[in-house]
Amino acid sequence: MSQVVIDLNADLGEGFGRWRLTDDEQLLSVVTSANVACGFHAGDAATMRRVCELAATRGVRIGAQVSYRDLAGFGRRAMDVPADELTAEVAYQIGALEVFARAAGTRVAYVKPHGALYNRIVRDEEQAAAVVDGVLLAGGRLPVLGLPGSRFLDVADRAGLPTVTEAFADRAYTDEGTLVPRARVGAVVTAPDEVVARSLGLARHGTVDSLSGQRVEVRARSLCLHGDTPGAVALAREVRARLEAAQVDVRAFA
Amino acid sequence: MSQVVIDLNADLGEGFGRWRLTDDEQLLSVVTSANVACGFHAGDAATMRRVCELAATRGVRIGAQVSYRDLAGFGRRAMDVPADELTAEVAYQIGALEVFARAAGTRVAYVKPHGALYNRIVRDEEQAAAVVDGVLLAGGRLPVLGLPGSRFLDVADRAGLPTVTEAFADRAYTDEGTLVPRARVGAVVTAPDEVVARSLGLARHGTVDSLSGQRVEVRARSLCLHGDTPGAVALAREVRARLEAAQVDVRAFA
Amino acid sequence: MSQVVIDLNADLGEGFGRWRLTDDEQLLSVVTSANVACGFHAGDAATMRRVCELAATRGVRIGAQVSYRDLAGFGRRAMDVPADELTAEVAYQIGALEVFARAAGTRVAYVKPHGALYNRIVRDEEQAAAVVDGVLLAGGRLPVLGLPGSRFLDVADRAGLPTVTEAFADRAYTDEGTLVPRARVGAVVTAPDEVVARSLGLARHGTVDSLSGQRVEVRARSLCLHGDTPGAVALAREVRARLEAAQVDVRAFA
Amino acid sequence: MSQVVIDLNADLGEGFGRWRLTDDEQLLSVVTSANVACGFHAGDAATMRRVCELAATRGVRIGAQVSYRDLAGFGRRAMDVPADELTAEVAYQIGALEVFARAAGTRVAYVKPHGALYNRIVRDEEQAAAVVDGVLLAGGRLPVLGLPGSRFLDVADRAGLPTVTEAFADRAYTDEGTLVPRARVGAVVTAPDEVVARSLGLARHGTVDSLSGQRVEVRARSLCLHGDTPGAVALAREVRARLEAAQVDVRAFA
Repeated sequence: MSQVVIDLNADLGEGFGRWRLTDDEQLLSVVTSANVACGFHAGDAATMRRVCELAATRGVRIGAQVSYRDLAGFGRRAMDVPADELTAEVAYQIGALEVFARAAGTRVAYVKPHGALYNRIVRDEEQAAAVVDGVLLAGGRLPVLGLPGSRFLDVADRAGLPTVTEAFADRAYTDEGTLVPRARVGAVVTAPDEVVARSLGLARHGTVDSLSGQRVEVRARSLCLHGDTPGAVALAREVRARLEAAQVDVRAFA
Repeated sequence: MSQVVIDLNADLGEGFGRWRLTDDEQLLSVVTSANVACGFHAGDAATMRRVCELAATRGVRIGAQVSYRDLAGFGRRAMDVPADELTAEVAYQIGALEVFARAAGTRVAYVKPHGALYNRIVRDEEQAAAVVDGVLLAGGRLPVLGLPGSRFLDVADRAGLPTVTEAFADRAYTDEGTLVPRARVGAVVTAPDEVVARSLGLARHGTVDSLSGQRVEVRARSLCLHGDTPGAVALAREVRARLEAAQVDVRAFA
Repeated sequence: MSQVVIDLNADLGEGFGRWRLTDDEQLLSVVTSANVACGFHAGDAATMRRVCELAATRGVRIGAQVSYRDLAGFGRRAMDVPADELTAEVAYQIGALEVFARAAGTRVAYVKPHGALYNRIVRDEEQAAAVVDGVLLAGGRLPVLGLPGSRFLDVADRAGLPTVTEAFADRAYTDEGTLVPRARVGAVVTAPDEVVARSLGLARHGTVDSLSGQRVEVRARSLCLHGDTPGAVALAREVRARLEAAQVDVRAFA
Repeated sequence: MSQVVIDLNADLGEGFGRWRLTDDEQLLSVVTSANVACGFHAGDAATMRRVCELAATRGVRIGAQVSYRDLAGFGRRAMDVPADELTAEVAYQIGALEVFARAAGTRVAYVKPHGALYNRIVRDEEQAAAVVDGVLLAGGRLPVLGLPGSRFLDVADRAGLPTVTEAFADRAYTDEGTLVPRARVGAVVTAPDEVVARSLGLARHGTVDSLSGQRVEVRARSLCLHGDTPGAVALAREVRARLEAAQVDVRAFA
């Protein structure tokens, strides 16, 4: 049976002060969910405000992209943060973003961990629980976005949080349906045509060809698009156009 | 006519990570309003959470002690922050604290700028307006705490925010009823007896003796107590006890 | 009498972690002096190392671009930093950069304050003296780069530091030979032809046409080129080519 | 055979801005080697300067206490920092401290990693090598201080750096002569008498009683004293007095 509804999410507002990374304005005309950086790996307050205003205007859902506190490493370095600190830091970031979402007439609608934290809680039960506790502490029982089969989604589900699975059209998958680590050859799919084709397969059939060539099942409610490389916006646009042409309903999760 | 109701406020949660500054637990048994550091000059997320929980348990009102982004300088160095950045940063801090206040079953009840920002907006109209915009952006039309006669309270009042005046029992006043700059000799009152006496005068009569010996009027709804020096907690306790013995109603502002 | 020797300096290494700002590699093929960010407004350690290696390879002189501690504001917000803190922070930055200069087989050859600090010490005697004290503390009596007529160069000169004047071909000047504040209309010269022409006039004749059209004298040993805008590298290349075609000796100061 | 020469080292300058942690002045009258925080986990520039001046006056050797970049976690959270970043960050910190050591008439004489980095490189070969590369990059082939048997000392030794072993009189040891992890019961020795007795045993005989009661060999050229707890300075003084009374030569390593 083919999937017919898909959410498109992307990381936004990942500049800091003088520095810009993503073309937020353009990306917000493509995606249905915006993972907004909250100041810990990127995202100063003024940028957060602007992205929330733009997202609200475009009807794009706002999510808190929570991270380890690590501007120098852009949140890409795993850290052994004690659970109580991590819980408080996650809640802090959600709260800070919520101010700008509300001021823009909407609300923070979900939480997606960033970078090294995202990868860590695929397997690290303690940190996964700490993040879930942070989401609970922030209130509102926000949905969380993560990898199918991750400890994070498992812990979140048990805690009563709605979980949303996501897939990556530009990342290679193993035969078990997990991501091929970035360090391995072929881990990242760069050919635009291939990214488009994989997006269609993931959205319509919930499947993708693994690195070894096997068709594997990857059921995801959301596709993550990247916006920090040259040509990224054009590719994102193409993905969306092709999904819509194939009658896929591109829509934020409930 | 004598004043009979007074609020006692103090800065709390002004540690950061490994570092502690104030005896939060003890101070929360004395004051009626807690100015909680929000992470920009001090105050990590876990500390913010703990202070909010303690304050809520004790029935102490929680205020956002917003600051310039300056951990190295403890927010004591005036900064020429552009208005739109300052506005967003103020809102960010309020939002982050609000998460912990709500989680503790209460709400952020007011905003008090910290250190160099507090002093700057006594006269700097542009930054005063930026802070007020930040409070408005955060929503809820929160009361703001500041110096009587300051541009800050003036701008806040015009913007429709409730304003709360405060006085300092351990600071010298000029004949005009303004604070003697810290750099001048005699600017800080250190003798405990004198601090207690001045607290009583400020609370009961709205007056204080100026540095030159004149009795001047300083109408304040709140007295600021300091908690970061040896003996500070004992002195704060003494002030409160003496106020209560004099039938002053020690109570948070509405 | 025409000037015949000129240094070309530019700010380099002004990224931080994931963020990049300047095209360091290209700029280092144009300039004779590299103002390397030292981590306070920009410039992580790995970037500092890489820029120093590239500069040393190209024979470009390395200068410490010292700044207020302000990553969020890119060092563009004036700060009331106490003199002793500022002095220590300046020395700290020079020392950190020196490690990478030495490792690349060269030395830090000069100091240029950045952004708001640069502007502040044009007039602020106390901060000017604090920066000079920092340079002295770092040892080696390094030359300092600054505006002709600034308090900074004056204080540095009195302290026995070599001073190097600089001019800006892309900034408008007043009839008194000072920079027109950025906030004023016409403060920045954007037309490439004009920037080239002004570079030639400054280098060869020590003069520039003021905003009101008067020819004014601006004697500078170094021209500052900007590298953080589109087309900046191409323009810098053009300036250098035209200077050399006009027999100007493009060379670092002694 | 008894050991007769021992170095006493302690962490100093571990405040940041407004916050203080250690009684630097007192500790500098006890120890022979000062591990000075370099700004990444603690230690602002003005504090570094002051500690270096005090240490130089007292004839105490200055070491660079290098750390992960983590003020919020006081460098106590292990981080997966890529090798090239870690190398550059280590060199950066050494260079920054060197400025203040030189200004005080001395030099940085050794390097000691701090906290989580110290623990990580007991076993993590890649990070151990990255730290060693940072020390080499900083020049001067500085001695490094670490745990006997650690990968760090091993890699440093192979790279030609002098290595200095250290022991902890207030930490429990396993039967294999390694530290009992802090999380385990009995990991920290708090009774002053016991700390003194263990100091004497370590210094004179190179042995200590393990947690299970076995006498194990722990050959160390330096004893680490802690200065961040109440009574720490008094205990450090007592340790030194008792060592000297026992004819142990308390002296910095060569």
